[in-house]
Parts: sequence; structure tokens; C-alpha cells
Amino acid sequence: MTDIEKKLGYRFKNPSLLKLALTHKSATHDAIYCYERLEFLGDAVLELVVSKYLFEHFPQLSEGELTNLRATIVCSETLSKVAETLNLKRYIVFGKNEKKEGFENNKSIWSDVLEAIFGGIFLESGFEMAEKIVINLIEPFIKKAAEGKLFYDYKTKLQEFIQREKNIEIKYIDYENLENNLSRFKSELYIGKNKISEGYGNSKKEAQQEAALNALKKLGVIED
Amino acid sequence: MTDIEKKLGYRFKNPSLLKLALTHKSATHDAIYCYERLEFLGDAVLELVVSKYLFEHFPQLSEGELTNLRATIVCSETLSKVAETLNLKRYIVFGKNEKKEGFENNKSIWSDVLEAIFGGIFLESGFEMAEKIVINLIEPFIKKAAEGKLFYDYKTKLQEFIQREKNIEIKYIDYENLENNLSRFKSELYIGKNKISEGYGNSKKEAQQEAALNALKKLGVIED
Repeated sequence: MTDIEKKLGYRFKNPSLLKLALTHKSATHDAIYCYERLEFLGDAVLELVVSKYLFEHFPQLSEGELTNLRATIVCSETLSKVAETLNLKRYIVFGKNEKKEGFENNKSIWSDVLEAIFGGIFLESGFEMAEKIVINLIEPFIKKAAEGKLFYDYKTKLQEFIQREKNIEIKYIDYENLENNLSRFKSELYIGKNKISEGYGNSKKEAQQEAALNALKKLGVIED
Repeated sequence: MTDIEKKLGYRFKNPSLLKLALTHKSATHDAIYCYERLEFLGDAVLELVVSKYLFEHFPQLSEGELTNLRATIVCSETLSKVAETLNLKRYIVFGKNEKKEGFENNKSIWSDVLEAIFGGIFLESGFEMAEKIVINLIEPFIKKAAEGKLFYDYKTKLQEFIQREKNIEIKYIDYENLENNLSRFKSELYIGKNKISEGYGNSKKEAQQEAALNALKKLGVIED
């Protein structure tokens, strides 16, 4: 049993699936023999596991509230934290150049690999096993998110700061440019009528968080 | 066994779940006692079922190709077609005013209800049962989509028409405005360097399809 398997609490029946989940495209120069297809599957596994958990544990929340809560949990910040606890970084296989260029420190790759691992477990052992493993890893994050305590929640921090100071509205205007399939989101943050900051990210949430972080810096709440 | 259950090939253990899946918010004026929470769950069920099917049946497709194919299948056009075969329209419960205003003809509601039904089956009978029912209903659409033959594929139609005529490139530039949580996508269609048309929709795909449809009308391929 590998270290990863020990930490996951799951032994792969088919070890080549785990190997595939840990293989970056740069190692094989092939979009099929790398983690990407498993990541496609694992992303949907994670989405359903979290959706089911939230549906069952929060019977009082509306669809909109559930959707927002899920977005706070299923994001690359959370996944890369989980990936860190598994020390995935040590095991991902890259091409030589990418290894030199420090791709192993790219947290977004860690979360892709984690999703690929979830995809692999689902594929060989079914939904319930995948659910057990996923919940075991991410339940603490779900609980934090439900309490609005995810540490990287700059939006909440800004809201709290502003309301202590003055009673004015914070507004985000979000844009997405999907040209060339590069989903770059942009969010403009307004306090009252004044544009305070901007943020960018791979999701609406990330862009808003960055905008909020930049506003907190501008306001001197967080050190630049 | 109700008519819907016969057509689904599934008898609900808990008939109140089916009732909930058929209840529009307008009937209860409550975001909890209506289909919306089940729809949240069913949307994720459908996503995983289709992802697994595509992963297993198309081992030669890359993640990007799988994602595109999935988007062609998991969309309200397909779902409302399926809803039509189940005659869901007849069974959805609305408030009095909404009934008068013809909400029952809103195809997007049909697809929401269909997802809610999938959510209900998953909830009481687990993933494998939900998978069986979903695949049974949508497999014909998956096969059509895989062959690029979904009848509403105006993009493909346009591509085929243009290539028969001249050898120039069709390009879509996509925008999303997420203000007020209203995800309105806009797509601009260029043939070579000339902007030919625009489309709008609730997804990038819908907006592109509408842009392609408008181009086809402009070019006289489809009657306006």
C-alpha cells in the first residue's frame, strides 16, 4: 500500500489507475494517457458527493443557498488544501522540462490530480465507496464553509469591516471572457458608487475573492 | 403506479418525493417545499451519469472533447425533449396565477422537474438505480450527440454550409455577464473577419447556437 493510499484509507484494486491519476500530460505528451480524463469523471463525482451531503445535512437551505455553499467547497482552494494533506505534490509525474520549471508547485494541478484520484476510486469501486473517501477528506472543509469560516473568505471579511464602519453597499460586477476556451473571470468591486478594486480568477468566486482581497489591502485591513 | 412511473420504469418507494419533484414554487410559495432542492441534487446526478457513460464509451476522447460532448447532452433542449416523452407538463403543480399565465408551457421548467425526478430516485434508491433510469431515457440523445446529429445543432449546420461554399473560418467570441446572478451569455459570430450575427442564452452553448441560427437565417439557409 502506498503512502497516498494509506492517507486516503483506500487501496486501489487496479494500481495503474492510481498511476494514471498521478500522471501529468507533460510526462506522456498525450491527452489520453494522463490524469485529465479521470479528472473529468472525478469532478462530477465530487460535485454529486458534496451535493448529496449538503442536501441531507441542510434541509432548511434553498437551492440557491445550497448552490452557493457548494461553490465555496468545490473550488481549487479547498481541493489544493486536501491535496496538501495527502502530500500529492511528491507523487505527480511530470515531463523533464515541466519538472524543472516547478510545475509541481502549481496548486491547481494538485486539485486536478485529487479529482482524478476520486474519479479512479469511483470507476473501480462505485459511488458509495468514492463518497466515503471524499467525505472523509473534505467534511472538515464543508463544516467550516457552512459556518462561513473558510479562511480565504475575503468577501465576508470585507462585508464585516464595511458594516462596522459605515452602512453602505458592496457590489460585485462580474464578467467572463470565454474566448479561446480560457475562462478568465473578472470582478469589479464597488463600495457604494465607487469602484474600489478588481480581481481575476478561473471562476466567478475566485475573481470576487481577489477583488475583495485587493479592497481589504487598499483599505489597510490586510497588509499588502 | 402513475403514468409517469410507468414511462420512467421506476416506482417511487416514497410517493411524496415524486409529488415534491412535480411541485413548482408558485404552488407553495416556499423555496423548500418545491422541486428546487431536488433539482439541485438531480442536476449533479445527471452530470455524473453522463460523465461516466461518456468516459466508458469513448476511451479515445480527450477531457476537452468529453466536456464538449457532455455539454451537448446535458442541456435544457435535451432534457425538455425527454420531459416531453414523459408528458411531465400534465403533472406539474403550479400556483393559480402561474397556471393561468401558461407556465406549464415553459420548457425550462420541464427540464428542472425532470432533474428533480432524477434527484428523487437517487435519494431513495442510490446511484446505480438513478443511473439505470437516466441512461434508459437519454441514451438515444447521447448517441445522436456523439454522431453530431442533435437536430438543434445549428453550429454544425453552419460549419457544413460554409465549408461547402468557401473555405473560411467561423469564430465565436463569448461573453458572460453575471451581474445579479443572471447568467446571460452572449456570443458574437464571425465569418472570416466579418461579424455576422449575435446570440444570447443561459449557457455559452445556447448563445453560440442562437448566433449560428441567426447566421443561417441571414444566409438564407433557414427560413426566418
